Amino acid sequence: MAAESDTETPDPTTPDQHTDKTTVDGLRAALDGPWAQTRDELREALNRRDLLADPALDLGPARAKILAEMKELASHNFAAAGFRTEHGGTGDVGKAIVGIEMLGYADLSLMVKSGVQWGLFGGAVENLGTARHHDKYVADLIDLNLLGSFGMTETGHGSNVQALETTATYDPATREFVIDSTTELARKDYIGGAGEHATVSAVFAQLITGGPGEEPHSRGVHCFFVPIRDKNGKDLPGVTTSDCGYKGGLRGVDNGRIIFDKVRIPAENLLNRYADVAEDGTYQSPIESDNRRFFTMLGTLIRGRVSVGATAGAAARKALTLAIRYALIRRQFDAPDSTHEVTILDYRAHQRKLLPLLAKSYAVAFAQNELTAELHDVQSLDPDDVEPHRQRLLESWAAGLKAYGSSHASHTINVCREACGGAGYMDENQLPILRGDIDVFTTFEGDNTVLTQLVGKEMLGLYSEEMRGLNAAGWVKFVAGLVGDVVAEKTAVRQVVQTLLDSSDENPDKSDLTDRATQIRLFRNREDHLQRTCAQRLRRAADADDPFAVFNDAQDHLLKAANAHIERQVLESFIQAIDDCDSKSAAELLGKVCDLFVYSALEADLSWFLMHRHVSVERAKAIRRGVNELCEDLRPHARGLVDAFGIPEELLVAPMLEHG
Amino acid sequence: MAAESDTETPDPTTPDQHTDKTTVDGLRAALDGPWAQTRDELREALNRRDLLADPALDLGPARAKILAEMKELASHNFAAAGFRTEHGGTGDVGKAIVGIEMLGYADLSLMVKSGVQWGLFGGAVENLGTARHHDKYVADLIDLNLLGSFGMTETGHGSNVQALETTATYDPATREFVIDSTTELARKDYIGGAGEHATVSAVFAQLITGGPGEEPHSRGVHCFFVPIRDKNGKDLPGVTTSDCGYKGGLRGVDNGRIIFDKVRIPAENLLNRYADVAEDGTYQSPIESDNRRFFTMLGTLIRGRVSVGATAGAAARKALTLAIRYALIRRQFDAPDSTHEVTILDYRAHQRKLLPLLAKSYAVAFAQNELTAELHDVQSLDPDDVEPHRQRLLESWAAGLKAYGSSHASHTINVCREACGGAGYMDENQLPILRGDIDVFTTFEGDNTVLTQLVGKEMLGLYSEEMRGLNAAGWVKFVAGLVGDVVAEKTAVRQVVQTLLDSSDENPDKSDLTDRATQIRLFRNREDHLQRTCAQRLRRAADADDPFAVFNDAQDHLLKAANAHIERQVLESFIQAIDDCDSKSAAELLGKVCDLFVYSALEADLSWFLMHRHVSVERAKAIRRGVNELCEDLRPHARGLVDAFGIPEELLVAPMLEHG
Repeated sequence: MAAESDTETPDPTTPDQHTDKTTVDGLRAALDGPWAQTRDELREALNRRDLLADPALDLGPARAKILAEMKELASHNFAAAGFRTEHGGTGDVGKAIVGIEMLGYADLSLMVKSGVQWGLFGGAVENLGTARHHDKYVADLIDLNLLGSFGMTETGHGSNVQALETTATYDPATREFVIDSTTELARKDYIGGAGEHATVSAVFAQLITGGPGEEPHSRGVHCFFVPIRDKNGKDLPGVTTSDCGYKGGLRGVDNGRIIFDKVRIPAENLLNRYADVAEDGTYQSPIESDNRRFFTMLGTLIRGRVSVGATAGAAARKALTLAIRYALIRRQFDAPDSTHEVTILDYRAHQRKLLPLLAKSYAVAFAQNELTAELHDVQSLDPDDVEPHRQRLLESWAAGLKAYGSSHASHTINVCREACGGAGYMDENQLPILRGDIDVFTTFEGDNTVLTQLVGKEMLGLYSEEMRGLNAAGWVKFVAGLVGDVVAEKTAVRQVVQTLLDSSDENPDKSDLTDRATQIRLFRNREDHLQRTCAQRLRRAADADDPFAVFNDAQDHLLKAANAHIERQVLESFIQAIDDCDSKSAAELLGKVCDLFVYSALEADLSWFLMHRHVSVERAKAIRRGVNELCEDLRPHARGLVDAFGIPEELLVAPMLEHG
Repeated sequence: MAAESDTETPDPTTPDQHTDKTTVDGLRAALDGPWAQTRDELREALNRRDLLADPALDLGPARAKILAEMKELASHNFAAAGFRTEHGGTGDVGKAIVGIEMLGYADLSLMVKSGVQWGLFGGAVENLGTARHHDKYVADLIDLNLLGSFGMTETGHGSNVQALETTATYDPATREFVIDSTTELARKDYIGGAGEHATVSAVFAQLITGGPGEEPHSRGVHCFFVPIRDKNGKDLPGVTTSDCGYKGGLRGVDNGRIIFDKVRIPAENLLNRYADVAEDGTYQSPIESDNRRFFTMLGTLIRGRVSVGATAGAAARKALTLAIRYALIRRQFDAPDSTHEVTILDYRAHQRKLLPLLAKSYAVAFAQNELTAELHDVQSLDPDDVEPHRQRLLESWAAGLKAYGSSHASHTINVCREACGGAGYMDENQLPILRGDIDVFTTFEGDNTVLTQLVGKEMLGLYSEEMRGLNAAGWVKFVAGLVGDVVAEKTAVRQVVQTLLDSSDENPDKSDLTDRATQIRLFRNREDHLQRTCAQRLRRAADADDPFAVFNDAQDHLLKAANAHIERQVLESFIQAIDDCDSKSAAELLGKVCDLFVYSALEADLSWFLMHRHVSVERAKAIRRGVNELCEDLRPHARGLVDAFGIPEELLVAPMLEHG
């Protein structure tokens, strides 16, 4: 890089662009994936700086701004794709996810409030309701004539949804459910829309009923359509809403709390796709097991989790675009023997901050596109035709990628802010707003640690139906009782990976580290090793007095195994995307980016690879050097690599980019 | 831990406190250090929840609130300690730093605005001015009759202060300086106080003058006392201030920009302690070298950097207190065979998130206390009596600990926010405000990467006077030209460390890892190894064509060496604090905390220790296990360890702590 900067003086009027247009276009096509047209349409529609968050707005006006923007989106039928044609939508799940993701380039509040309305609330009505709900509500919620909220989380129960304390008790006398917040901790909390705009809520509560001669008891968590406010925004009788007020970000989202004091709703307001209550109180469900029914219902709602992961990726890409563009014009300290200062991206330390995160952002984007496509395919089927195993894999992959991608996004945005120094701390340059907004993406739609643990438990539990809902100790006992080796590969190996593996040396330590098959083997071997040893450890403890202690001692092991699993899948998505790439020059550049992703992932976990002798000391040193060399190689393409994201220019407005 | 939770049900009304009062008191005394009385006084004075930031306030009212609080502090003579008795203060530097640090428990905006006024602006007048400035300004700035700002950073120049473009040109005709923002990038930027309240600024500018028959030219950066606003807050002629507006945090601080259009100030407004200009324009300074003079002036201003590091530590402790208290009452998922749910701090993954950061916070606090004491001692001497070497070490240590401590704080607060889930994202629970405020601590008073690099350069440059101000390439040439081995220990070995080393086995791989001497040797050997190999690498490149490229290739190596240096010093401060601790039980507990600090520091850098064979594979595995075991050991003391920080209870108000 230094050599280059001696011979080529970057011209500040034409950006530091060393990647030809064909290549950038090729990268763009690869990144855009199957819903490229939707992306292009939204690029045009969102290319307006008035969509950016205005930090001067207080809660009320900030929320009003977002609601007005949603209404504008609705007027262009933005949300129809997320709903089936028979319910009044256009039935294109992938388009719906990609649309929500693109909103993240404008304002994460717009994405979140849209996601709550159309994804979570709308998704609950669509997927948990039946014709009577679809006919009555779907068109209105698409058009925003009906503003809803998703009443799942309670003050006392975030991650453990099965333990929710709100009750919905069936009263056969009036054919009503009585919704009640039984304890202080049963208060619905952090509910988007509940602060101000929502007039109804999809409330998750323990359904309590008894048939004739049967003591009423809980049938587990079900979802109910509950009106909470009248047209004037006043709480309905028995409902007490309050406002969560100021948060770490997402100012345009009106999060709030709801307390129900024996609120009566008609029995038909039970979203009754998976269970119903007969007039006499008899509980009926096509799914016998409470546990299985609960997870089946939850499984239909993963769209929210997928959208959150997708949007986190978009936010990271935006932050990287801002930080890399800044690093390409900002100059500090003199370059020796040269007439111009070096840009800060010429410094290795700065490259090392940003470029591995850029590479990882590519990896995450490709993985996300595959996840979105799989969600689309699965949800385009009749639910009864979806193989349970496929659904389970989809759910696990959605959980894993949400955790992996949102942790990456939060970290990346932090680094980007810091990489822009004082300028990065000014709201006018957008990074602090992104930083505040993204923070909760690691928490909502599933705490990342809990989600990662879920992936680990599923891996080790052979994706068994029966283990769901088990607590830590129960799960330990379950795993200890499994027969056979858990390392068996659960997902079909994709062709491109198999071909690469077949044509290469099996011993990864002997073959070149830039060899793609070697990279795959390193990631796969790590995953297999962690999975096997974690299972062994749990089995050895089969007779332990305190299975919770066994679980706890292995918790970091389990999380690490899950991470290795997720990262291997991300790598394979990247490899697939390179294979699918039509442009030769783009594919070549993607190869380098993939190398940097692999090298920096290996570097981040080098102690593990060394400790378990999957990598020699010599190779470990080569990995460190390799990260440096790849940073140097990719430095001239930094601008091209972020331009390929295709973020609307008006959404990248930042005074710091006007002068270095 | 699980065993314990089976036998003892924590009572929610009496906190989960398993550490006896004597021990907590002993910890408190150790943490409070030499200015314990100041801390206690401020604990009482600050124990008011109205001092907490109010997220509902817009910029104007938020700033007014902070200014009013500063006036109240001033009315109690809060700032007098920072100024010499002969200038109207009470001359207790340590007390001044500790006072500023304690403000961080209340509101970081209060700390920053106070630090700007009394530390930076006041410090410039005190340390760069002479009697004529002291007599005229010090009493007023202590009392806030004079509100100042610190006009150093420019839009184009943050880290590279020597390259500032604002000029102060001497006009012998009128005996004035003409202050001018020569370019767009010369605009003063992010200046605390310049947004609204400051009426003057200590402006750093290139002093341009020529004596009789001498062409006027720059004598380097000097500081000038420049009025910027009249009493009504209106910009003075030639001055254009503007407001930085909304930022990532620190809403109560009025950052702004200043453009000077040939503003004339009397010659006596040069803060002329280190240089003056005679009536005829002749430049005079007791320090001949421009470079040395510049760094001498800067060296007197390190108090700001020390305060920022100290306060970052306080902010991290506050976040940990909130997150750990929450983790001790928050319950999720059932414990097996037990009548109560486990708290989230019973989970190993949660312990692993928080407890190593708690241990590191102890380490940083002890190191900070030593730094504050050394700053106190040095600045209590007549400046002419301060050994240059001692001053250099102090500056390097201040830079290193600011970088190390503020990175730790920013990371810790991020983790604490996430560890509190949705509750952690609500401003009412304080963590998001802390997170927004702390972010810029990694940037201001020196970007952490630049500061760490400075430490590395100094280490390798044998703390030579001549190398300061050299650019990357110049510095490479300088290091390459050094004779002799650079590994020589530059700081005197403290007695307690020497005693430990003398009485232990020299081969760290053979002795027990809980042995303190072994721990020291591991840290020291890492530092020595990195320092030596980095120097060798630079020397081999002595004849390279492109010394900047040489520097760049070694930049990550240099940063790593510096980090190892800083972390070794932090460890030794911790060991000193244990040795100094009067309470036997507290010292024992501190020993465990120190072990966790060491084990997790080793774990974080395990790949390096393995790659360079400072640690065997077996030992590496023991380190991983050790972190888990130490987390389990310290879990019962988590509450005691945060209570020992002694943060005023009213400043820990958070609704999430009222119910789990």
